[in-house]
Amino acid sequence: MSDRAQQTYAAVCQQAHQIKLLSTMEQVLGWDERTQLPLDGAEYRAEQMTYLAGQIHDLRTDTRFGEWLDELSSSELAADPRSDTGTTVRQLKREYDRQSCLPKRLVEELSRTAVLGQHVWQEAREEKDYQRLAPLLEKTIGLKKEQAQALGFAEHPYDPLLDEFEPGATVQQTQAILEGLRDELVPFVRSILDTGHQPDTSFLRRHYPRAAQEKLGVEVARKFGFDFQRGRLDETAHPFCTTLGPHDCRITTRYLEDFFPSAFFSIQHEAGHGLYEQGLRTECFDLPPGEAVSMGIHESQSRMWENFVGRGAAFWDWCFPQAVEAFPEALSDVSCDAFFAAVNQARPSPIRVEADEATYNLHILLRFELEVALLAGEIPVADLRDAWNAKTEEYIGLTPENDSQGILQDIHWSAGLFGYFPTYSLGNLYAAQFFHTAEEAIGPLDEQFRHGEFQPLLTWLQKHIHQRGQCDTPAELVQDVTGQPLDHSYLMQHLKNKLEPLYGLR
Amino acid sequence: MSDRAQQTYAAVCQQAHQIKLLSTMEQVLGWDERTQLPLDGAEYRAEQMTYLAGQIHDLRTDTRFGEWLDELSSSELAADPRSDTGTTVRQLKREYDRQSCLPKRLVEELSRTAVLGQHVWQEAREEKDYQRLAPLLEKTIGLKKEQAQALGFAEHPYDPLLDEFEPGATVQQTQAILEGLRDELVPFVRSILDTGHQPDTSFLRRHYPRAAQEKLGVEVARKFGFDFQRGRLDETAHPFCTTLGPHDCRITTRYLEDFFPSAFFSIQHEAGHGLYEQGLRTECFDLPPGEAVSMGIHESQSRMWENFVGRGAAFWDWCFPQAVEAFPEALSDVSCDAFFAAVNQARPSPIRVEADEATYNLHILLRFELEVALLAGEIPVADLRDAWNAKTEEYIGLTPENDSQGILQDIHWSAGLFGYFPTYSLGNLYAAQFFHTAEEAIGPLDEQFRHGEFQPLLTWLQKHIHQRGQCDTPAELVQDVTGQPLDHSYLMQHLKNKLEPLYGLR
Repeated sequence: MSDRAQQTYAAVCQQAHQIKLLSTMEQVLGWDERTQLPLDGAEYRAEQMTYLAGQIHDLRTDTRFGEWLDELSSSELAADPRSDTGTTVRQLKREYDRQSCLPKRLVEELSRTAVLGQHVWQEAREEKDYQRLAPLLEKTIGLKKEQAQALGFAEHPYDPLLDEFEPGATVQQTQAILEGLRDELVPFVRSILDTGHQPDTSFLRRHYPRAAQEKLGVEVARKFGFDFQRGRLDETAHPFCTTLGPHDCRITTRYLEDFFPSAFFSIQHEAGHGLYEQGLRTECFDLPPGEAVSMGIHESQSRMWENFVGRGAAFWDWCFPQAVEAFPEALSDVSCDAFFAAVNQARPSPIRVEADEATYNLHILLRFELEVALLAGEIPVADLRDAWNAKTEEYIGLTPENDSQGILQDIHWSAGLFGYFPTYSLGNLYAAQFFHTAEEAIGPLDEQFRHGEFQPLLTWLQKHIHQRGQCDTPAELVQDVTGQPLDHSYLMQHLKNKLEPLYGLR
Repeated sequence: MSDRAQQTYAAVCQQAHQIKLLSTMEQVLGWDERTQLPLDGAEYRAEQMTYLAGQIHDLRTDTRFGEWLDELSSSELAADPRSDTGTTVRQLKREYDRQSCLPKRLVEELSRTAVLGQHVWQEAREEKDYQRLAPLLEKTIGLKKEQAQALGFAEHPYDPLLDEFEPGATVQQTQAILEGLRDELVPFVRSILDTGHQPDTSFLRRHYPRAAQEKLGVEVARKFGFDFQRGRLDETAHPFCTTLGPHDCRITTRYLEDFFPSAFFSIQHEAGHGLYEQGLRTECFDLPPGEAVSMGIHESQSRMWENFVGRGAAFWDWCFPQAVEAFPEALSDVSCDAFFAAVNQARPSPIRVEADEATYNLHILLRFELEVALLAGEIPVADLRDAWNAKTEEYIGLTPENDSQGILQDIHWSAGLFGYFPTYSLGNLYAAQFFHTAEEAIGPLDEQFRHGEFQPLLTWLQKHIHQRGQCDTPAELVQDVTGQPLDHSYLMQHLKNKLEPLYGLR
């Protein structure tokens, strides 16, 4: 390998290191904003973050950086695109090319509109009035179309937006996989509803003291393998996971004292994200081989720990006695079976974040279809609410009571996040397929979960997924790990295995 | 005023704005490090902070910035050095000149040695062994001498170091004022000890539940005027105050459940710093007119609220019933008079941070004298412990049991902070003189404190001190506000007024 290429590679790594130092600072500022910031501090914090975003953009689009990456792309270091050096060159160049396509004015306007959008969205949501948000959304979609044009696309203007969150994914493929799922899921949900049976869930709404919720949640997260010496758990309005350094991953939750599942499952969900982050190779924290590959794969980890582990019968065999001990007043007259049934209730509901494992994907599907149509200019923003309500009726089987329960329930669109929603369902699909493969490789997981043993699953995930970083595309990763492309049948099988017995369908 | 000067001034303000954005980010990272950071996150955080420090240094020493400031120094905008524009130009140029004198290598080495120094200090302190720290201290002092040479000085190499924390102060002046204080304070403390009387303080060591301490501390800080919508209170090992934005000032404390004064007075102390920060003019947050003038003046605010207000008899007339309510088990058999006497006990002790209001200044004096001698090369680092112990015997009247109780008790020297200690005593002296002037201006403050009225004092401090920012030097400020230069007699009078009756000397 030439000295010159090695020197250039070192310079590229140094630049990536600086970018990472700044982007992790952005995460510190963001975490602090959402968990600590005094009420009046928001405006200046936005200014700090905007400045930092500009600095990061400057480093990412530094033309010298681009020249180095061009030079390296044809060097021996990039000959194997899935080696660590090849991945570094390929992915940094991908990011450089993407960022360089975007005029700084557009980047700034997108950032400004996103910050503004969150305020407008909050007001509109409080007033349950979509029309309050429509003008801003019109502007946002205009900017997103401009962004799509700048990034370029072969088939659909939505493709480059989706590609940001799920590299390599396209409308066509995603449509195919989600529609395949839909065609089986809709009749399956119908068959559940047709049983006329629903489990008792009333005890989930008893009093669950906050301190005991936190204690149990931390215990379970620790048992899953989340390392609190390299992370922490805090309280926020909207749970999230963020990484502030190679040994500093923070998760948050929201405690509702009158609804047990809210904090408990969100801690498991965010811990799942955290386990992925903590499982990445810290020695290349700065570089793509040490970074998460996509939002969909990220979500597969959180969904796996939340749904495939944490909502499983075997898990509750292990955990329920601890839950009874933690909440004697709420749970002393409840059986483990009844509890398991309650936390797995499948029933259409208007709100995505409250949806169960089965109907959740229908919420995503309708959003995905609307996003695609918006970008293609097939639905005017003025008609969006009607389209939303019609699709909710079609897929979920109910009409939102008002805009807050409907089109205004999610922050994503007002924050400029188009292309993000489908990664939630992709995450469910990946999770099912990975979980199936893991079980084939390391034996019946239920037996392990029943004894509180989660390390074998985590070790498998670390080896086959976390430590790969961005060395594969999501599609390559699925193919390599599971031996076949993404297939919706694993998720359907998981749902049927769990729900059919619960609803007397088997 | 010329258009050209106005344009240059705008560019300078823009640069100052950027410097402030980065330096407040540094504060966010620092606050997070000291209150939130997971154990394993420290190393990367140090890297983030070092990088940021480098970025800030680059902006501060940008030669174009220096040229703008040179140009403005001879413009009409700087004609009145105490106007807002004059202050901005003068102080930014002062900072530019100081920073530009220092080679980047020295800045980096000072930063590295300071970070390293804190670890070495901790180890040495745990092992009670000064020799563990001596080699590092040798290096640090070498760097500080080099820094002093680079900054330049007319009389004493300690002057430019002191000037960093207390602009305009010199060894000669500071020696004069502190020795004047010493000559009265030493015999005064002797006369107290000669009474053979000490108040009962045993009840201060009863059980004070943490939650009740926090509640009372917050109530008092709020009553003083600390705005929790623009700030917050958290827990740390070493209490501090930091400003993260124009509306984001954070204070911290440490709760000891078996020693009431620790958290209570440190909250008041840090709230005093916070009131100064919150009282600065937010519209010029980025610029010197909106920044604190010196560490000594800063300390005068914290000491005033802690000692002149919070340890006063009138304050306890108001607060003691609330304290009894907060801690019924600890205080139901204690009288307000006994409590007041206990929290004002004057008695030599080996540890500075535990010292009382009177003997505290003797701790500072010995440190100041040793620092000055070290910089002048009059004491070799190898002999420093003996010199420390001899001076402790001379001023405090006791010999430290071991190095941890003696020369290793403070972090300052290992962190490269030379010139900082005297600002603590200057703060006490300023506080006494300002408090005297405030009382002359707005009437007997005790009457107000007895009714829980603190707003008049705060309003006076805001108008005469906080809102001046850096428009005056500390010496000008004292002269303007009190009509005379700094004079130790006000502090002596305050101590005599309080302690003579308590010790039967009046």
